[in-house]
Amino acid sequence: MSKLLIVGTVAFDAIETPFGKTDKILGGAATYISLSASQFGAESGIVSVVGGDFPKAYLSKLNERKINTDGVEIIENGKTFFWSGKYKNDLNSRDTLATDLNVLADFNPVVPENFKDTDFLMLGNLHPTVQMEVIKQIPNRPKLVVLDTMNFWMDNTWDELMEVIAKIDVITINDEEARQLSGEYSLVKAAQKIHEMGPKFVVIKKGEHGALLFNDGNVFFAPALPLEDVFDPTGAGDTFAGGFIGHISRTGDISFENMKRAVIAGSNLASFCVEKFGTERMETLTHDEIQKRLLQFKLLTQFDIELS
Amino acid sequence: MSKLLIVGTVAFDAIETPFGKTDKILGGAATYISLSASQFGAESGIVSVVGGDFPKAYLSKLNERKINTDGVEIIENGKTFFWSGKYKNDLNSRDTLATDLNVLADFNPVVPENFKDTDFLMLGNLHPTVQMEVIKQIPNRPKLVVLDTMNFWMDNTWDELMEVIAKIDVITINDEEARQLSGEYSLVKAAQKIHEMGPKFVVIKKGEHGALLFNDGNVFFAPALPLEDVFDPTGAGDTFAGGFIGHISRTGDISFENMKRAVIAGSNLASFCVEKFGTERMETLTHDEIQKRLLQFKLLTQFDIELS
Repeated sequence: MSKLLIVGTVAFDAIETPFGKTDKILGGAATYISLSASQFGAESGIVSVVGGDFPKAYLSKLNERKINTDGVEIIENGKTFFWSGKYKNDLNSRDTLATDLNVLADFNPVVPENFKDTDFLMLGNLHPTVQMEVIKQIPNRPKLVVLDTMNFWMDNTWDELMEVIAKIDVITINDEEARQLSGEYSLVKAAQKIHEMGPKFVVIKKGEHGALLFNDGNVFFAPALPLEDVFDPTGAGDTFAGGFIGHISRTGDISFENMKRAVIAGSNLASFCVEKFGTERMETLTHDEIQKRLLQFKLLTQFDIELS
Repeated sequence: MSKLLIVGTVAFDAIETPFGKTDKILGGAATYISLSASQFGAESGIVSVVGGDFPKAYLSKLNERKINTDGVEIIENGKTFFWSGKYKNDLNSRDTLATDLNVLADFNPVVPENFKDTDFLMLGNLHPTVQMEVIKQIPNRPKLVVLDTMNFWMDNTWDELMEVIAKIDVITINDEEARQLSGEYSLVKAAQKIHEMGPKFVVIKKGEHGALLFNDGNVFFAPALPLEDVFDPTGAGDTFAGGFIGHISRTGDISFENMKRAVIAGSNLASFCVEKFGTERMETLTHDEIQKRLLQFKLLTQFDIELS
């Protein structure tokens, strides 16, 4: 079985959407990524940090899904990273109400011994210096290193981000971030520029408009599943990344053909995430439900047309 | 060979994009629809109206592509419909600078005798009363009636529009128009509401984000081809509709499976339209180019993933 190491936040979120609001609930990039990837059966572990206020029951939820949390440092006298946001009516934009870094401010990641030989490395959205620190702690390069990042790091830590981007294989960012990172409006041109920064594979996430995978002049598109109701988009991008790296970890195949399947897997998992608040839907999700929806993705996209 | 009747504007356009601007050039919904559909070899004719100022050479351009213009009335002492618009930097929004209805203001469409037995009817974006008038002039219902419309008619001629919508098989509108027409934000719910108004098939155009086809609980998605450069989006929606009805006319098959291929054909043709100003690209487009790009659409969307 492949090993998959996931670095990212484990956090408290407080979310408000047009359909309701939550108190502090389980959140964080590594949480969503690992819950999603765990559907694919890799031996996965998290590197993160939480405070003494973080319920043991939340870690147990992850452990129940066979997610190793030995790499989640607990700072007993510290507070867990907290994010709060309010979505607008169209659910496509949101206001951040609070970002309390807390224990994340001085995070020194430590890769557990039994994950130093990880096959796959997923660097969730975090300070690029933390991402780089994890790369350095792994003596033999993993088969594939995937990085997620965001505009905040482009604005504030450009040089550090460029150093990390030069060392990875796959970057996943949204369309606006791809434009910011490359200075190109056309996503085709943006992907070309980003290839030149290092990553052989560029995944551009467009939310409800799907995701594009670029590699060496090739391009593949995975739609988002059209849904009757979207409840809460929080974690959808991380869940997409988790489905992507989860599929790759299960198959061990890093060809472009298999990455197509991986972005479909990512879209598939993300389509569930948004159906309920926070991680709720991901906690009850079954293999059968995923397989059924995969069939829907086939029906949604596959056509048969002869060249004449 | 199937007959295809196309109703819509034949016009002058003046276009400004970030890449340049044009004087008055050939434009209009029926122009783009017919140029696109002509690639598929149906016997097609236009019902429209122009003024005495409309160059005979423009009509000849259409005739050269075997588009019958007997139904294009020429009002010698009138002026041709004129539209002028300026696109913003992202090419996704535009300001209308002028809309001079001219001869269109009193348009009484007349279906030529040899198209009264048309197999397929494409009602391009026009006053719904004009669209209804054409439906009434065709004694035996065509195999398929496709309607394109826009928010302007929803704002100003709701009742007349509802009467036409009740009589057609396929409606093509953009996402914002689908939301306005249905009062639903979710496009899945919007399509359900629009089905109830009459059309069995609902095509929602999302521009650079592709198009959705809904029918009786089934949904299919055709992406837009990611392009390095988009020059001028004018006519892309009409070109999409022309490719859609062109494919249907060529095959004579109105099954959902074949409509999937039709929306791919529409996306394919539209991807060319935006590469140059106005109708320029559509005038030089060849069968070979279309076939090559169809292969690109296959590579863009087709994946092979086993259910496990």
